[in-house]
Amino acid sequence: VEANMSASNTSNVSLGGYGELHYNNIEDNESIDFHRFVLFMGYEYSDDIRFFSELEVEHSLAGDGKPGEVELEQAYVEIDLNDSTSVKSGLFLVPVGILNETHEPPTFYGVERNPIEGKIIPSTWWEAGALINHKFADGVSFDFAINSGLEVPNDAGVYDFNIRSGRQKVAKANADSLAYTARLKYTAVPGLELAASVQHQTDLTQGVLNADANLYTAHAIYNTGGFGLRALYANWSIDSAEAEATGQDKQDGFFVEPSYRFTDKFGIFARYSEWDNQAGDSFDTTMEQTNVGFNYWPHEDVVFKFDLESRSGAQDGDGFNLGVGYQF
Amino acid sequence: VEANMSASNTSNVSLGGYGELHYNNIEDNESIDFHRFVLFMGYEYSDDIRFFSELEVEHSLAGDGKPGEVELEQAYVEIDLNDSTSVKSGLFLVPVGILNETHEPPTFYGVERNPIEGKIIPSTWWEAGALINHKFADGVSFDFAINSGLEVPNDAGVYDFNIRSGRQKVAKANADSLAYTARLKYTAVPGLELAASVQHQTDLTQGVLNADANLYTAHAIYNTGGFGLRALYANWSIDSAEAEATGQDKQDGFFVEPSYRFTDKFGIFARYSEWDNQAGDSFDTTMEQTNVGFNYWPHEDVVFKFDLESRSGAQDGDGFNLGVGYQF
Amino acid sequence: VEANMSASNTSNVSLGGYGELHYNNIEDNESIDFHRFVLFMGYEYSDDIRFFSELEVEHSLAGDGKPGEVELEQAYVEIDLNDSTSVKSGLFLVPVGILNETHEPPTFYGVERNPIEGKIIPSTWWEAGALINHKFADGVSFDFAINSGLEVPNDAGVYDFNIRSGRQKVAKANADSLAYTARLKYTAVPGLELAASVQHQTDLTQGVLNADANLYTAHAIYNTGGFGLRALYANWSIDSAEAEATGQDKQDGFFVEPSYRFTDKFGIFARYSEWDNQAGDSFDTTMEQTNVGFNYWPHEDVVFKFDLESRSGAQDGDGFNLGVGYQF
Repeated sequence: VEANMSASNTSNVSLGGYGELHYNNIEDNESIDFHRFVLFMGYEYSDDIRFFSELEVEHSLAGDGKPGEVELEQAYVEIDLNDSTSVKSGLFLVPVGILNETHEPPTFYGVERNPIEGKIIPSTWWEAGALINHKFADGVSFDFAINSGLEVPNDAGVYDFNIRSGRQKVAKANADSLAYTARLKYTAVPGLELAASVQHQTDLTQGVLNADANLYTAHAIYNTGGFGLRALYANWSIDSAEAEATGQDKQDGFFVEPSYRFTDKFGIFARYSEWDNQAGDSFDTTMEQTNVGFNYWPHEDVVFKFDLESRSGAQDGDGFNLGVGYQF
Repeated sequence: VEANMSASNTSNVSLGGYGELHYNNIEDNESIDFHRFVLFMGYEYSDDIRFFSELEVEHSLAGDGKPGEVELEQAYVEIDLNDSTSVKSGLFLVPVGILNETHEPPTFYGVERNPIEGKIIPSTWWEAGALINHKFADGVSFDFAINSGLEVPNDAGVYDFNIRSGRQKVAKANADSLAYTARLKYTAVPGLELAASVQHQTDLTQGVLNADANLYTAHAIYNTGGFGLRALYANWSIDSAEAEATGQDKQDGFFVEPSYRFTDKFGIFARYSEWDNQAGDSFDTTMEQTNVGFNYWPHEDVVFKFDLESRSGAQDGDGFNLGVGYQF
Repeated sequence: VEANMSASNTSNVSLGGYGELHYNNIEDNESIDFHRFVLFMGYEYSDDIRFFSELEVEHSLAGDGKPGEVELEQAYVEIDLNDSTSVKSGLFLVPVGILNETHEPPTFYGVERNPIEGKIIPSTWWEAGALINHKFADGVSFDFAINSGLEVPNDAGVYDFNIRSGRQKVAKANADSLAYTARLKYTAVPGLELAASVQHQTDLTQGVLNADANLYTAHAIYNTGGFGLRALYANWSIDSAEAEATGQDKQDGFFVEPSYRFTDKFGIFARYSEWDNQAGDSFDTTMEQTNVGFNYWPHEDVVFKFDLESRSGAQDGDGFNLGVGYQF
């Protein structure tokens, strides 16, 4: 396409974005980082066919020798087959957990995301493939996806079987061993969301070690009046002698997060997180983290955040975090 | 510019994009890649002056140690001098071949682009400079450009005189030796497009080996009823003893692609491609490739693709490709 | 956010951009580069709250081993506290000099920016933090910011105390030692702008050498009829024995630029620049540069530029520059 040919005017285009600036001060280690800057772009082809995308600049600066990167996190075509069934084809967010699909800063408490959806569920986590969504009834929906799989390091190094390092991000990804993801979601009661997902990876090492694995995760979100509660559990079970040798055949964690929103503009929260990426060993490798703090929303889509952080268990450290976030 | 100063509202802005996800399975080598994600942005300054740009994220992920890159592929100001003549200044697509200027996935058959417009014509190929376009009559137009040149490797390595590796992409490009490009295009008969381009490179090595070169290419596109035919020929002729020594002084290729579109939504094609990047030697270095497959368009701007691929000649391998693409 | 949830339609979104292509020929060193390609995106939350951002691709191509980079140069939320006071939070341009905040190519003469706002004021220079702006009266405004600081190299290498190399660009930036910036700006007389800024860096080395520093800068812009004048002075004073040892404890420079615009479309200019990044030593390390040339604006927001360049003092070289630029 060139200038004279008509690129779309903007009538069927949707645009949006979000971003978050973080100041972290943990054990006198002070850093400031525009962690995420995101553009959404969508297009409505017809009532039944649409495109959606999310493009992110992480850490503000991407290039040779620079700390950040540019990431395509969503880019799919969605086709409605009928009123209750639709199919996504392309690159999409894996339907697991709370934050993986909804991670705009004004939607959650805490400067940093909860550690479970990072260390156990490797959010932000996207794969390529096809996903079918079916609504059984108002507030009951089911997703099933065939998607590209993880490829965890397996070269006898320190990152072996590190789930987070296994994300190929659909960038010239090895597609030897695919994965299957299913989710059931219940939102029929106002204020309540319950969801559970299972994912089967046919081989986490993409043909090298024949390490099939299953992820089980469930979460609850409940809001009534100003009171809110979020809780999530996630568990990896990896069928591999190599993973077993280091206790990485089990990797799990959970968090609970009660909160109270006094007004539209102000709310407080506390969050306790506990996780273990070597839960299969007999050593004490459990990490613990507690955050307490507040959100201030001058507008529903703009947020200032503060929280105190205390790390314990197999890790240590105290400090605080400050953040600014927005979405549109 | 800052927030208080008025950035444009969106009334004169045009937005668009395209993308393609590829799954390749050749000789049991399976990979999945969001090969291209593109944003178009244009602005209409007046009836006679406009800006147009194309920004691409290749391979989904760009940064230090990452497989992809962010590329500016078009960014030019176009000024109409009169009803039949206009001038582009800036960074533009070189006016050669079929795909170089029109490469949105719903516009062509085959998951992957034809290999000639990759190995011989190094598409996607952009340069900086000025281009004048003149319409002699309805359906007869002429382009002439003075543009930045290629800089092929010439350090006695394996990529010496590799045309594709010579693209400087207008990124701190060596401008010692410019190039001149001319194209004549005929579209006066409905369904038919004929075009031929010549490019003269004053020195492919930008002052090192004094290797001037000429590219000659011609193509035809014909559509009538459901039947379609595309054919293209391209030939490099390089005046350099160093290139002659390895047979790279001649590099050429062609493809023919008949197709049949049964309905708006479904069409089939076959494509035979043959090329040789060392056509000047006496060895059998000719590559051959045959693809047969189909396109399915649920909407005219959204496409699902499948094709079987068979490689022969100086290369070998069989397999298939699957793709999803869109434009807006 | 996903497709079904509503990303913003485009009604409250503002979009814009600018870009510049440079051809440089200094001492027969010829290069062509799409130096800057920028997208602006803003959102109006309410009359009092807005978001603004500037995303740039430098040198056309960013990725592993590529010459360019992707940079987030602005991304902040601005809240009006009352009619005369507003606060920015996030990542913003430091309020110093002329070009740092207003650098769109049609707004200035010369293909390349003046060297003072590069070598002394490290434009384009952004930091993260909070900035308060107060308008005392029509045409009299004051800015005060608490922002992230520079981190100059200090490993006894050739870039030690190089101000430009000290920009952390809010990318996982060390926030041990913050900085404070104040500016007074006077624009009450039509055609005239006077401004002066002071910045205090608590430690240019972020906790290593305890090198606090002050930047002082002032500039004047005056336009009357076709006549224009720009002048700027900037001075760093660094309190560090290590900087003193190499004369880098003083770094300063200035430029003066008279110009004359004959019509809306055509103007000429001359610019004399002088700077010294080792002004504290007793050697002749002063750089001088003279540019003379013209701008041609076919539209007020599109510009073609040409200038002759002559370097002298502690550097040497002659040549010319050609450029194309636009904004919208």
